[in-house]
Amino acid sequence: MNDSTHRIHLGHGAGGRLTHELIGSMFMRHFGNPILLQRADAGIIGQLNGTIALTTDSFVVRPLFFPGGDIGKLAVCGTVNDLAVCGARPAYITAGFIIEEGFGMNDLERIVASMAAASSEAGAMVAAGDTKVVEHGTCDGVFINTAGIGVVPAAWQSLHDGSRIAIGDKVIVSGPIADHGMAVLAARNEMGVSAPIVSDCAPLNGMIHAMLERFDGVKFMRDATRGGLAAVLCEIAEKKPFGVIIDERRVPVRDATRAMCDMLGFDPMHVANEGTIVIFIDARQAHDAAAFLRSHRYGGGAAIIGEVTGQQPGMVRMRTAIGGMRIIDMPEGELLPRIC
Amino acid sequence: MNDSTHRIHLGHGAGGRLTHELIGSMFMRHFGNPILLQRADAGIIGQLNGTIALTTDSFVVRPLFFPGGDIGKLAVCGTVNDLAVCGARPAYITAGFIIEEGFGMNDLERIVASMAAASSEAGAMVAAGDTKVVEHGTCDGVFINTAGIGVVPAAWQSLHDGSRIAIGDKVIVSGPIADHGMAVLAARNEMGVSAPIVSDCAPLNGMIHAMLERFDGVKFMRDATRGGLAAVLCEIAEKKPFGVIIDERRVPVRDATRAMCDMLGFDPMHVANEGTIVIFIDARQAHDAAAFLRSHRYGGGAAIIGEVTGQQPGMVRMRTAIGGMRIIDMPEGELLPRIC
Repeated sequence: MNDSTHRIHLGHGAGGRLTHELIGSMFMRHFGNPILLQRADAGIIGQLNGTIALTTDSFVVRPLFFPGGDIGKLAVCGTVNDLAVCGARPAYITAGFIIEEGFGMNDLERIVASMAAASSEAGAMVAAGDTKVVEHGTCDGVFINTAGIGVVPAAWQSLHDGSRIAIGDKVIVSGPIADHGMAVLAARNEMGVSAPIVSDCAPLNGMIHAMLERFDGVKFMRDATRGGLAAVLCEIAEKKPFGVIIDERRVPVRDATRAMCDMLGFDPMHVANEGTIVIFIDARQAHDAAAFLRSHRYGGGAAIIGEVTGQQPGMVRMRTAIGGMRIIDMPEGELLPRIC
Repeated sequence: MNDSTHRIHLGHGAGGRLTHELIGSMFMRHFGNPILLQRADAGIIGQLNGTIALTTDSFVVRPLFFPGGDIGKLAVCGTVNDLAVCGARPAYITAGFIIEEGFGMNDLERIVASMAAASSEAGAMVAAGDTKVVEHGTCDGVFINTAGIGVVPAAWQSLHDGSRIAIGDKVIVSGPIADHGMAVLAARNEMGVSAPIVSDCAPLNGMIHAMLERFDGVKFMRDATRGGLAAVLCEIAEKKPFGVIIDERRVPVRDATRAMCDMLGFDPMHVANEGTIVIFIDARQAHDAAAFLRSHRYGGGAAIIGEVTGQQPGMVRMRTAIGGMRIIDMPEGELLPRIC
C-alpha cells in the first residue's frame, strides 16, 4: 500500500486522476446510486411532485468522532432533521467535503460509511458531491457541508412558519436535552471530564412523519440544535402575539448530563441537541402525542414541558423547580464552539 | 463601533443572539427574499415543474479576492454553471459559510455582496444558508459551499450524460483557456509574477440557454474547471466508442496567460477555468454556434478546436502546432492547489 492509498493528498482534490480514483474507490462505493453514477456536473433527479423544501448546513464538529456519532452521521441527520421539522420528506442530499492534506483515508472511510448508513436510514439519496483538499494546517481535519431537498405533503404546508401556533397549545420536547453538546465536550478530553454521555444524533424524519400522520394538531416543530432549547423557544416566541411558559421540573435531562452541566457551569437549556425536537401541539392531542413519541426509539424521553400563553407576548419564561419564574433569553456569545 | 461589529467572533456561529444579528445585518440585507425571510429550518420554495438537477461545490480559493472575482462570485458561478451545462435553468442556491474567528466583517460583506450580484445575474435565488465559525488557525479565512437546484426543460434532458455525442461532431471552447488559474496564482504574489490576467469567472447560464434555444445540435457541454480542458476532455472520452482530436493551434490562450504558463511550466490545457465551457455539437451547426457565442459578452473568444473521431476510441489526442500528434492525459497530482 503506497502513501496515496492511506492518506489524503492535495492531488485528491485537483480534479485529475487521484480525484477520480477517490470518487470511484470511496464515494461511489458507499454512496453509489444511479444518479451519482451519471458522473455529470449535476445529478439529474427527475421530477419531484409537491412543494419543495431546501436546506443546508456545514459541520465542523471537533472531535470528528464522539459517543453516539461522528461528523458524517451528524451532517446527514442535521440536514434531514431540518427538512423533517418543516414537514418535508427528505428526498436527496448533497455532500461537500473540505479535507486537510494528510488526513487518514481510514478515518475518511469511517465518516463516509457513517453518512451512507444515516442517509439510507433517512431514505435520502446522496445525489451530488464535491471534494476539496487544502494544505495541512489550513482546515481542521475535515469539514462537511450537506444540502437537502424534500417534498412537503399538502397537509403539512403551513408547519414551517409557526403561523398555526395558538394560545393554549402544549410544548413537547422529544427527549432529554443537552446530551449532544456534553457528549462532544467530554470526547475532547480537554476538561478532564469523562462522562458516560452519548449524543442524541439521529435522523428523526421517520418518527416525525409517523407523528404527523397520527396527530393533525401538530402546529410547529424545530430541532433544538445550536443554542439549545432556549434559542429555539426564543426564536419561536420573538415578535409573536403569544408567550411560552416552560416548567423546569418537566424538562428531561439525564443525570450524567445534568451533573456535567452543573460542574462546568452550563445551562442545559443552552446546550445543543442533534436528535431532539420541540413540538407545539393542540392541547387535546399533547398527551397522546408524547406517549406516541415515547414508543419510538428516538423519542424515549419525550415529555410535555410547557404551554403557549397569552401573557407576556414575545417572551419565554420558566417556572423554576423551586417555584420562581425566570426569563429565558437567547444565549449570548459562544459557550461551546465546534459542537456541530 | 465595537469589535463584534467589525470582526467575526465565535459567537457569530453559536446560534444565539450574535448569529441572529449577523443573519439580519449581513445575509438578509444582501440575499433577502421571501423564502429566506421565512427564517425556517428549510426554505419552502414551492413547486418546480420538470426534471430537477441538483449539484454542490465547496470553494477554498486562495487568495479570497483576485482580478475578475472573489470566492463569493466563484461560489455562485461554479454551481450555476454546473447546472447550466446539464441543461438546467438554475432556480435556487444554498450558501454555507465556514468562517475563521477574527475574519474581517468588511471582507465578509464584500464576499456576500459579490454572491448576491452573481446570483441575481444568474436568476438563482439564495433560498437557504448556514454560518459556522471556527477558532483562529483552524480554517483559512473563509470557505463557502453552495448547492444549487435547477429545472431541465424537456428538450435538453439527454444533455448531461454525453450519450448524444457522435463521430464527426465538432468541439467548441467558449473562450480563452487557463485565465482563472493564472489570475489566482498571480494574485498570490508568491512566485514574483505580476501579470495582467483576469479570471474568466462568470455565470454562463444566460449564454448557454440562449445557445441551446438556437442550436438543437448541441450534444454535450461541461465547464472546464479543476484539471482544465484536458481533464474534461479525458473524462468525456473515457470508455467511450469514440476519440477526440484537438488542434493545438486553434485552442485560444491569451498571450499573457500563455507567457505565464510557459514561465512557470504549466500546460494551459491543465489549468482551471471558471467561465469557460467545452461544447460538443453537430458539425453542421458548429460555425454558427461559435459565431453566436462570440457575440456574447462571456463567449468573445469562442473557437472550434477539434472533433470527435472513430479512431483511437477512449483517447484524447492533440495535433500540435508543429504538426505532431500527442496524447492528452488526465492531469496527475496537484499542480495548483486552492484554485477554486
